[in-house]
Formats: sequence, C-alpha cells, structure tokens
Amino acid sequence: MSGQLVVTPAERAEVDSILARLLPIGVGAAVFGSRAGGTPKPWSDLDLVLEGSERLSVDLLGKLGRAFDESDLPWRVDLVDHASVSPSFRKIIDASKIPLVSRAVDLVLHQDPRSGNCYKIALTAALLGIPLATRDYDIMQGETRTPEFLARVNANGRIPVLQIGDKFLPESNAACWYLAQGSALVPADRFAQADVLRWMFFEQYSHEPNVATLRFWLRFVGQANLSEAQQAQIPAKRAAGDAALRLMDEHLAHRDWFVGTGATLADIALFAYTHVCEQGGFPLDDYPAVAAWLERMRALPGFVAMEP
Amino acid sequence: MSGQLVVTPAERAEVDSILARLLPIGVGAAVFGSRAGGTPKPWSDLDLVLEGSERLSVDLLGKLGRAFDESDLPWRVDLVDHASVSPSFRKIIDASKIPLVSRAVDLVLHQDPRSGNCYKIALTAALLGIPLATRDYDIMQGETRTPEFLARVNANGRIPVLQIGDKFLPESNAACWYLAQGSALVPADRFAQADVLRWMFFEQYSHEPNVATLRFWLRFVGQANLSEAQQAQIPAKRAAGDAALRLMDEHLAHRDWFVGTGATLADIALFAYTHVCEQGGFPLDDYPAVAAWLERMRALPGFVAMEP
Repeated sequence: MSGQLVVTPAERAEVDSILARLLPIGVGAAVFGSRAGGTPKPWSDLDLVLEGSERLSVDLLGKLGRAFDESDLPWRVDLVDHASVSPSFRKIIDASKIPLVSRAVDLVLHQDPRSGNCYKIALTAALLGIPLATRDYDIMQGETRTPEFLARVNANGRIPVLQIGDKFLPESNAACWYLAQGSALVPADRFAQADVLRWMFFEQYSHEPNVATLRFWLRFVGQANLSEAQQAQIPAKRAAGDAALRLMDEHLAHRDWFVGTGATLADIALFAYTHVCEQGGFPLDDYPAVAAWLERMRALPGFVAMEP
Repeated sequence: MSGQLVVTPAERAEVDSILARLLPIGVGAAVFGSRAGGTPKPWSDLDLVLEGSERLSVDLLGKLGRAFDESDLPWRVDLVDHASVSPSFRKIIDASKIPLVSRAVDLVLHQDPRSGNCYKIALTAALLGIPLATRDYDIMQGETRTPEFLARVNANGRIPVLQIGDKFLPESNAACWYLAQGSALVPADRFAQADVLRWMFFEQYSHEPNVATLRFWLRFVGQANLSEAQQAQIPAKRAAGDAALRLMDEHLAHRDWFVGTGATLADIALFAYTHVCEQGGFPLDDYPAVAAWLERMRALPGFVAMEP
C-alpha cells in the first residue's frame, strides 16, 4: 500500500534541504508512521527511517538529529536506522514507508576494467559502501572515441567517466571527490584537505604519465608496437617514474598514510597504479615503505582488488 | 587588559575545529564579553567577533551560525562582524577581546614569476584579497634542485610551493584550493565542486604538459637546445595541446565560465597557461570562445596580470 506524505510543501522543503546537506551518498531516507498516509495530529513526530549499506554512525545520526532539532519544523523528527531495528519492526516500516531520498543514486561508472584510473573510483565507492553500476569499454578497440561516446559521455574521449543521473563527470580524481565529499576520505581541515589534493595532483602529473604509461605501453601495447617517438620517451619516463616512487617511499618511511593518520583519497589515487607498477618494469623491492603501505591499503575494511 | 578565556578545553577544541573548517583565510576571530575574562553563567553565550578586510558575507555568517547551532556546544555562539559594529561598540570589543584565530596569515609563495603554475596562486590570492609574500627562484639555473630546497621546501624539486607558517604545500592547484576553500571560487554544491576539480585535473593532465611544455621549450629553452627525445615529442604535444584548447573552446561556446555562472578555480587554473599559449605556437585566433573568456577573466575585480 502506498500513502500520501502528510506535511506541508514548506516542511517538505526544509526536510529535503537538511537531508541534501548532511546525508552521505548511498544512504536513503523515507517517512513511515502517521505522517506516511495516516491522520497525524499537528504535533505528531515525523518518523524518518534511514537506510545505508550497514549501520549508520552515531556521528551522522547526531548531526542529523541536531539539524532537525534546530530547524523551524513545527514537530520533532524521530530518526530510525533501518539496519538497527528488529525484523518485525522493519516489516512494519517497509510496508508503509514513503521514500524521500532514494538509496539508489543512479551512479554508472563508464570504465575499462584494466585501467587504474577507473579502479580508483570503484575502490572509493567500495570503501564507502556506495553501489556503482558499470559500463565497460575496450580502449584498445577505440570504443571511447566513437562519435556517440564523444557526444554523450566525454568530449575528451577518455574513461573513466562517472555518470550521476543524466550528468557526466570525467577525470578519475574528480569522480572520487564527488563520491567521498563529507566522508573521512576527504578531511575537513583546510590544510589537510589541500594536502590530499596535493598528492592527487602529484599522482596525475608526476606519477600516472610515467608509471601508468609504461605499464600500458609494455604490458598492453607491446614494446614492438610503440612508435619511434614513444620509444624515445622510455628512458625519461623510467627516470621520472622512479623519482615519483622514491618520493613516495621517503614520505612513507615514517608515516602510515599520505595525509594524517588514516586512509584518504590521496592513498586511493596513488594505490591504483602503484600496486601494479611492476607491470611497467618498476620493481617494488626498491621501495619497501611503499610495499608496506600497499599491504595496509589491502587490509582496509571494504577493500576490493582490481580485476585481473 | 587581557583576560582568560572561560571555556573548557573540549569546548575550545570544538570552536577551533568549526573555525578551522569554515573561516576563510585572512579573517580573524576573537572572543569578547563575559567569556573573555569575566564571570559567565554556565548558559552564557560565547560572544565571537570576526574581523576581515571588509564586511563579511551573509552567506559566511549563516554557515558559521548553523555550524555552531549544530555543534555539541552547551551554549549559543553570538557572531559579530567587526566591520559592521559602531565605533563605540568596537572600542569595547577591542579592549577585552581574546584572539582565537589571527588575521595575519604568514603566507609565502615560492615561485618563478615566469611560471604559469605560480601565477595561478598569485591570481587566486589577488582575486580573494589575500596578501602573499613571494620568494623567487630561477628554474633555468636549477635553483629548485639545490639540497636546501629539496630538504626544506619540496622534495619533488618543483615550484610553486605555498608556505603556510612552517608548512609547505606543493602543487599549484592544491595551493589555490587551500586559499579559496569556503569562497565562491570553490562551489559548495557536491557536483559543482567535483566539476571544478574535473577541469583542474584536466588542466594538469591534458593541458599543461602540452600547452605549457611547448611554451617552455620554444620560448625559454629554445628549439635548438632540445634533446632528440624532446624534438620527437613536439608533434604529439602540438596535437594534444590543440585538442585541449578545442575542447575548451567548444565548452565555452555557449557558457561564460567553466562551471556554473561565475568564475571558479577551474577558470583560474586554465587561464594561467592559456593566456600565454601563443608563446608555445598555439594561435588564439583558432579559439574565439577561449579568446572571449580570457577577456572576461581580465575584467574580474582584483585581477592581476602575470609578470611579463
């Protein structure tokens, strides 16, 4: 059975605006109880059920609760975590609830599973418990350079692209940022947040064009198929890739993570191509602190490996 | 006279953390009233005075007010804009206030003035009205590869580096982010913020290595002094630079700015090397929408030109 929400448009707008500001991606919200199709008193609470992939944090529930308490809404909002209630109560909720924010965020990752840049986004989503649909392309067959792809997905002819509803977001690190804003993977502190970006820009400028490009050339294109101009670049890319890995190794010699005391997007961005750097001829034995950090990354709750 | 702050260490930590997250650079904060050396009741408000170079925006005051309301603090926080109060009230405030966050931000830009990456940071600071000290290096003379520079400023041997007190932040776009967090140059909307980063990563990956590198090679190194491997890369860099500028031109054909309806860090990052692209042999006449956007950038209040 489906009822009608019993709140005014202005009340609905206030609830929506608080949820839009504070609800992380992948957490849904719905109304149940008397304001979901019943006959509430004017002072009846709004019963709001939140549904994530696992139990919600006390911190999140506290933040939402305070925001509702301090709003102009004329009634209290009671928050219930879908994952924490008894199965019988859950049945009652599910039978009457009216969705406000869908859990399914309609995210599609346009990817080639062999690409570390695509893997970054999948790993970020996995660590945050956000479900992602995928659509695969074979870059070796030019499938990201078709007129359809250029017109609809990315005029730059590259993957990954994160599709959010009908919007398209190119650039792997920007897509990770979209998913992780407001989570611990993006610190709120001004310097720490900029420092995370510092390593993400380092990754795209000093690491990826060397470490990832040599992997692509040597493992996927094949040295014999490289152009003369590409052949001529190998020594410089080898040296620059070694320098990037050495810098990382020195940074990690006395710290567990690139920024602060836990994993952030800086670690995820750098993990993507570093953990397969040997496929480009960079021996991990030369970088012991990096090798130890790779193991810490693999031990993170929710970690997923790159498709082989 | 100087008093003692009457708050618990945990309360002080919560206030500090909200200010660190939301207060723009160059805005100071201080406590006055009964909690600045008086004898407050347990429920007395905390009187907080904010001091910028001009009147603070309603948006900023609203954001701070909400954050304090939604915090765990056991009392209200009353916000006062130093620039908006009467001279007589200002005198009372100034006589008793206890500083929490200093207005003076000890920022030093380590730069080579010919570098567009350094200019980005100077332009961001100028548009935001943030004063920056500078320290110049000549990259042609290897001044960023000295043992002192590598040990103290940036182990990656590159400029720009933004020095904040005794902390060092490499990567031009990360430094811009540090300065602009909380301002209109970094939109708060989740998608728009990620979209700004999308163009900043595009700039570092698809634009700078082609448009800026050819400018550096042709104008500063000189074609005759390039290595054979560099010579061999010119056609590919020419094609990739043209593709980046064409993509920008198509994006700007029907919009004034890269993201949303005003200038953001995306525009600043892309302006830096685009406005001197002809020095690398990319004719601006081929990109009329880009040329028109360059003029809009130059008309921004506070705009400063790159040193010639």
